[in-house]
Amino acid sequence: MVNKKLKIGMIGGGPGSFIGAIHRMAATMDGLMEVVAGAFSSNPEKSRQTGEELFLDPSRVYANYDDLLDKEKNLPESERIDVVCIVTPNHVHFDPTIKALKSGFHVILDKPMTFTLEEAKTLYDAIKSSGKLFCLTHTYTGYPMIKEAKSLIEKGVLGKIRKVYVEYPQGWLWKKLETEDNKQAQWRTDPNQSGSSNCMGDIGTHAFNLAEYVSGLQVSHLCAHLNITVEGRVLDDDGAVLLKFNNGAHGILTASQINTGAENNLKIRIYGEKAGLEWEQEDNNSLRLRWPDKPDEIYRAGTGYLSSLANENTRTPAGHPEGYIEAFANLYRNFARTYYALEAGKDPKKEWLDFPGAEDGLRGMAFVKNVLASNQSDKKWTPFEV
Amino acid sequence: MVNKKLKIGMIGGGPGSFIGAIHRMAATMDGLMEVVAGAFSSNPEKSRQTGEELFLDPSRVYANYDDLLDKEKNLPESERIDVVCIVTPNHVHFDPTIKALKSGFHVILDKPMTFTLEEAKTLYDAIKSSGKLFCLTHTYTGYPMIKEAKSLIEKGVLGKIRKVYVEYPQGWLWKKLETEDNKQAQWRTDPNQSGSSNCMGDIGTHAFNLAEYVSGLQVSHLCAHLNITVEGRVLDDDGAVLLKFNNGAHGILTASQINTGAENNLKIRIYGEKAGLEWEQEDNNSLRLRWPDKPDEIYRAGTGYLSSLANENTRTPAGHPEGYIEAFANLYRNFARTYYALEAGKDPKKEWLDFPGAEDGLRGMAFVKNVLASNQSDKKWTPFEV
Amino acid sequence: MVNKKLKIGMIGGGPGSFIGAIHRMAATMDGLMEVVAGAFSSNPEKSRQTGEELFLDPSRVYANYDDLLDKEKNLPESERIDVVCIVTPNHVHFDPTIKALKSGFHVILDKPMTFTLEEAKTLYDAIKSSGKLFCLTHTYTGYPMIKEAKSLIEKGVLGKIRKVYVEYPQGWLWKKLETEDNKQAQWRTDPNQSGSSNCMGDIGTHAFNLAEYVSGLQVSHLCAHLNITVEGRVLDDDGAVLLKFNNGAHGILTASQINTGAENNLKIRIYGEKAGLEWEQEDNNSLRLRWPDKPDEIYRAGTGYLSSLANENTRTPAGHPEGYIEAFANLYRNFARTYYALEAGKDPKKEWLDFPGAEDGLRGMAFVKNVLASNQSDKKWTPFEV
Amino acid sequence: MVNKKLKIGMIGGGPGSFIGAIHRMAATMDGLMEVVAGAFSSNPEKSRQTGEELFLDPSRVYANYDDLLDKEKNLPESERIDVVCIVTPNHVHFDPTIKALKSGFHVILDKPMTFTLEEAKTLYDAIKSSGKLFCLTHTYTGYPMIKEAKSLIEKGVLGKIRKVYVEYPQGWLWKKLETEDNKQAQWRTDPNQSGSSNCMGDIGTHAFNLAEYVSGLQVSHLCAHLNITVEGRVLDDDGAVLLKFNNGAHGILTASQINTGAENNLKIRIYGEKAGLEWEQEDNNSLRLRWPDKPDEIYRAGTGYLSSLANENTRTPAGHPEGYIEAFANLYRNFARTYYALEAGKDPKKEWLDFPGAEDGLRGMAFVKNVLASNQSDKKWTPFEV
Repeated sequence: MVNKKLKIGMIGGGPGSFIGAIHRMAATMDGLMEVVAGAFSSNPEKSRQTGEELFLDPSRVYANYDDLLDKEKNLPESERIDVVCIVTPNHVHFDPTIKALKSGFHVILDKPMTFTLEEAKTLYDAIKSSGKLFCLTHTYTGYPMIKEAKSLIEKGVLGKIRKVYVEYPQGWLWKKLETEDNKQAQWRTDPNQSGSSNCMGDIGTHAFNLAEYVSGLQVSHLCAHLNITVEGRVLDDDGAVLLKFNNGAHGILTASQINTGAENNLKIRIYGEKAGLEWEQEDNNSLRLRWPDKPDEIYRAGTGYLSSLANENTRTPAGHPEGYIEAFANLYRNFARTYYALEAGKDPKKEWLDFPGAEDGLRGMAFVKNVLASNQSDKKWTPFEV
Repeated sequence: MVNKKLKIGMIGGGPGSFIGAIHRMAATMDGLMEVVAGAFSSNPEKSRQTGEELFLDPSRVYANYDDLLDKEKNLPESERIDVVCIVTPNHVHFDPTIKALKSGFHVILDKPMTFTLEEAKTLYDAIKSSGKLFCLTHTYTGYPMIKEAKSLIEKGVLGKIRKVYVEYPQGWLWKKLETEDNKQAQWRTDPNQSGSSNCMGDIGTHAFNLAEYVSGLQVSHLCAHLNITVEGRVLDDDGAVLLKFNNGAHGILTASQINTGAENNLKIRIYGEKAGLEWEQEDNNSLRLRWPDKPDEIYRAGTGYLSSLANENTRTPAGHPEGYIEAFANLYRNFARTYYALEAGKDPKKEWLDFPGAEDGLRGMAFVKNVLASNQSDKKWTPFEV
Repeated sequence: MVNKKLKIGMIGGGPGSFIGAIHRMAATMDGLMEVVAGAFSSNPEKSRQTGEELFLDPSRVYANYDDLLDKEKNLPESERIDVVCIVTPNHVHFDPTIKALKSGFHVILDKPMTFTLEEAKTLYDAIKSSGKLFCLTHTYTGYPMIKEAKSLIEKGVLGKIRKVYVEYPQGWLWKKLETEDNKQAQWRTDPNQSGSSNCMGDIGTHAFNLAEYVSGLQVSHLCAHLNITVEGRVLDDDGAVLLKFNNGAHGILTASQINTGAENNLKIRIYGEKAGLEWEQEDNNSLRLRWPDKPDEIYRAGTGYLSSLANENTRTPAGHPEGYIEAFANLYRNFARTYYALEAGKDPKKEWLDFPGAEDGLRGMAFVKNVLASNQSDKKWTPFEV
Repeated sequence: MVNKKLKIGMIGGGPGSFIGAIHRMAATMDGLMEVVAGAFSSNPEKSRQTGEELFLDPSRVYANYDDLLDKEKNLPESERIDVVCIVTPNHVHFDPTIKALKSGFHVILDKPMTFTLEEAKTLYDAIKSSGKLFCLTHTYTGYPMIKEAKSLIEKGVLGKIRKVYVEYPQGWLWKKLETEDNKQAQWRTDPNQSGSSNCMGDIGTHAFNLAEYVSGLQVSHLCAHLNITVEGRVLDDDGAVLLKFNNGAHGILTASQINTGAENNLKIRIYGEKAGLEWEQEDNNSLRLRWPDKPDEIYRAGTGYLSSLANENTRTPAGHPEGYIEAFANLYRNFARTYYALEAGKDPKKEWLDFPGAEDGLRGMAFVKNVLASNQSDKKWTPFEV
């Protein structure tokens, strides 16, 4: 029986990393997991520094991820890590994930899944055949009111979906920040670290994932137009995509890093033949249900009338705001709950299994590839192919 | 010298008309104009009924617009109307406008300008050669904070414009209301009264006009996709248009009548290389200025720090909300102020001249035609041609 | 039969008046009334100037209100005014109102009713015995969603009312504006024109009126504390009042002119044993219903599900914002509709009779007097006496 | 040197506890502290159950707090706890805190400090003489934008403070929930566990603490009125308090548990002679600065222009919402950072020392006592005495 916290070994997340710290907070806040080992940076001194800040046993702070995987898998079962958490830039996703799975570890991987669609396909198969748990951290699907939105649509409250609007406005790359010693800007705008797309790969994929997740639909065709707005950039920093879904619904996805002054207000609006719903991340604890013939309703996180899917992803009562870190932690908690259930030989609740995985990763990479293909085409519509 | 209210003769606006009543409130609230004559309906009894409700002299309630124009122009100058206000469905815009101009009257016309682009071109020339004042009631440009937005962009506060988002979400046609004895739904979804487009013609043109008006830019290319969502309709009830502007900026315009539960929240967001701005019609007295490196600012109608363009279009101090009718009335008031100035042999203030006219009408009709052409094309981009 | 617009003679409202212009827009926007005569200022030249701006017949612009009343009442019935509208500072309310009633005119009077409670009592009796229509323009009761709020409470939707919060925050007197050539600030802070209270008399009375109107309750006891914040003032510019209502409910009323940066966001929140409601003037087209065990609902002006009381006070469909001027105009329109019904020998709809009158005026003046008495007392509670 | 996580022993927080779980998330999310021991319930089986859920060594799950304190203090220094965290109902605050301090442990205590003011005074002295760190978890002072508000006022941005409004509206006790097997409702409405006040003690103290914390002022006089709204209750469930501050400013504090439908929207508004500020907990990442003569500004958490006090209490970039748990965690993190600095022989940053402590606790208890005294008095003002 498992009567212990799940042990994490982290790859990436050294000094200056934004997302590494978020993963650690998300992993530990519920007391189900703890970081015990890491290869935090390709620079051994930086890796050591982060290990020290995390009070790790220095012997478990490694110079690189190969070391981490090799040495940890040879530790006694009671000591060695259970899960590898990978938070490196995109070009260092595929290799450590494949190796971690082969070393017998479960994996939590920051999105996007890989550097190229081809890698993603290979990894998808590797995950499926590994028998290991795999989570791709599409954070925004972890919000309680996003769970409620999905649940309401599944129950048919909106009727057949007709229209989906999803937008991801950011403004932080309004100027050429990548020349100003900003690590986040540097790697994201660098095709060698980020891949073939910056804006669509970084945030467009979140918007795409959210749209498919909440609506329960899949994109079948798209018409994309990308822009490079700030002079001297080589990757897109802005774009718009018209969408057709597999049920005949239509949609529009926009993503931008040059909406000057905008922060991070990922927003989704879905309209069906009976009702509509609207949610935005910067006011994440509310979900507005829109009715054609009665007052709109404001569903609120932490209340007594929500679905089990929302409830299993909530920690506080109504009016005590949860936020981004809790949404992130919901991915980790569901992953851990699933792990504990399986270890105990039980079926996990279906609500716990609802965390993003290999399929989301593969479709996300396909989204980027299809968007780029459409952008280069002078034909209006490009079929969505995986 | 003109020491009298401007006299209006109204064409259309009989029982069941929504926009006729709005025009009358807009015309009269500032005490500069009054309705003294009308041909309110093609049904003489209905016309008579409206005339009575307006306390009109029965001799000036006419059976049709030809009558109105013929008889009024032969009245003594001190009695006869000065302005013809036309609020009929779209297919009855061109003819009465042309005739009113020929009869020597100024004209205020509800949008869109005409039924077809060809009519619009003819009318455009007629207006220009008539020497008469002409206003096309693109209401939404009348809001004080839209005036402020335009003014801020003109002053360069946002820097070069990079991106324009404009959306016009409505939900009222979520079901087949046109079969339920709803006059508004009936004529708008009927190609014989509405023209070649319903949604894009009715509200897409407002969004288009607002985007060009506020940004000071012109659309150069577009990529449109229209939908007929509710079974049995023949005209579009939803659509999206990607835009390129003449300065290199990009944009997205969406308009829908099937966003179930949505009311009328026309919204515009514009981002430049220095700052962004955001405005929405359902919260029309606020304008949000977004900055990359300092707190966003909320500009508010009726305050002391606004531009003269905003001030000339405001009636109440801050915190006393103005709304749709006041925005509409701003068009009328500017029209009247221009009239009075010209009659007095003075130059009107440039703020008064800032009401929509023939150029707006022509570009609006071209927008509809170009959108329809793009929608039928499988090429991504269609050049915007007038 | 009355087949004509109601004719208004206005007292006050000359150059520099804020509220005079508002009254005129409110009176004329629905086409039921028109201003035909006036004594706009104690300065005849200023009066003449306003008359000219309104295109009035110079013979009906009077040097003072005695003149106006005397001469108008002697005009032929078809020509003379029907209604006197009084928009002078508070110390010139009583006398012209009494005389107007005696002259046989209906009266619309800006609030507060009089300069002193004693005057108010006398005027109350005079109104009651006159048989004339009387409206006191407590604007804020004219908003459609305030009508809806009242209606919901009357229907018992909230259950027994337990708690009422009403606040009226303004910031415009944050500095000593009255020494800066600001006419509005001058008369309101001057005890000779304003009366014994500035803040509580000017805006506290609106808050008080709104609380009693919406809740359907009456204040029975109060505990007041007033402040003079800006040095050199002699009247209150800020205050708070604890309230007990006649059904056992409790409340808090706050009013301030020194909430620096605040505009005019009169706000009311009422909680009953079943539900709560919240409304604020700066977002006047929404009313939030709060439920203990299901999602809050947002009632919206112009929708199809509202009460007849709200519907009779609306002009535009949902999403076309109405505002302060329309709320004001609702008082005028209901007044006019009542007039026309009575003239036609019919019972006015009860929704039309729902405009503020003598009782509101009397209780408002009593409120001021009781607040001042409580403020000077060191006892906690003062009974509310009229 | 301390190169380890701080070890916590928790008293209270067993099954059914809301706040115990919150404390644990707050303590562990930053990786600086961990719960290693506990006496979670007076019921040993329940205590054991919670210990198991937390993966604790069973030998460190104790039957009662005396046991915990006795046994832990005798463990080797490298093993034993460093901090005692006390999350029991109010009547079990004093004794374990005193004993924990005497046992040489630092203490984090849930508010209010004690059951009575007398206990609070004794405890205050005990804390001061103990030389131990003490934190009283007034959560709401932990929000980044509350830190910013305090900072702006300290810098004089608002000028001299004139007016403070603080309100704490809840609706959860709208009905007699304490008879419905709701543990939270039961102990809070029970004078034997809660003390002499329910509403004012539970949430009024938060409002009071926030007002003094942000404004930098102290209440000098108050005028309170409390209500017992739901039949059968013995303690207050609603109340209002007029305030005078030591600089001459005035204020109003309201707290209620019967604002049906309200959640937890603690709100503070402060107006000075130059500007105002407004913050509400349910939109905690924004702070509105209000100006009399320029546009309001929206300060946002995680941006680059904030004070060091705000920055030291933030984890995510702008637009990635932080919430209640992060605010709570800020108290813990500052406590831990202070601890580490002191252990290292360094001066803690002043931003880290900014967590609520003994003084806050003492004034909170005095607030309750003074409010009750005022409530029973028929005199308007009661001086605030500690």
